[in-house]
Amino acid sequence: MAKKITPTETERCIESMIAVFQKYAGREITNSRNTLSKTEFLAFMNTELASFTQNQDPGVLDRMMKKLDLNSDGQLDFQEFLNLIGGLAQACHASFTAASQPVKKM
Amino acid sequence: MAKKITPTETERCIESMIAVFQKYAGREITNSRNTLSKTEFLAFMNTELASFTQNQDPGVLDRMMKKLDLNSDGQLDFQEFLNLIGGLAQACHASFTAASQPVKKM
Repeated sequence: MAKKITPTETERCIESMIAVFQKYAGREITNSRNTLSKTEFLAFMNTELASFTQNQDPGVLDRMMKKLDLNSDGQLDFQEFLNLIGGLAQACHASFTAASQPVKKM
Repeated sequence: MAKKITPTETERCIESMIAVFQKYAGREITNSRNTLSKTEFLAFMNTELASFTQNQDPGVLDRMMKKLDLNSDGQLDFQEFLNLIGGLAQACHASFTAASQPVKKM
């Protein structure tokens, strides 16, 4: 029998990013399955990152979409999606690092 | 009692990337806990991405480290680490997309 190989945490994470992107990019049948339309992007944000979006001004997601859409085609491709995930991970990591620094005495 | 909130797949993935980076960055006590030294990078690659590294020429990891180390300080910070994960995800996604394209008839 073939040995079952358990993926590592990093491999699972890479698989997850691809699966999540495919899931939301494939929602609208009128839109390419390889990109997120504005509607698909909003569905992704409001479902997968609801804890981030729920306290935001409604214009924030519009501005995020515009900023992420580097080639201004009104769609987010996988690289543009990765930039979003990377930006959020970077922000979380910075906040985590700052919180774990010892407090300087006055 | 406080309601337990289950993280979404995307949130879990962001947490994983930070946890994995911290785990390997904190290995050597003589090196900063916020960056991966060459030794820590090799430990990460040979453990977390062993299925990728096992068939590679030994020089590949050296070249990868040099290419990822954008500011050439001999260390990988979290952003440089994210570029690696993003690059691998992009390569997997491209291969997945190509494999799911219908084969053109001659």
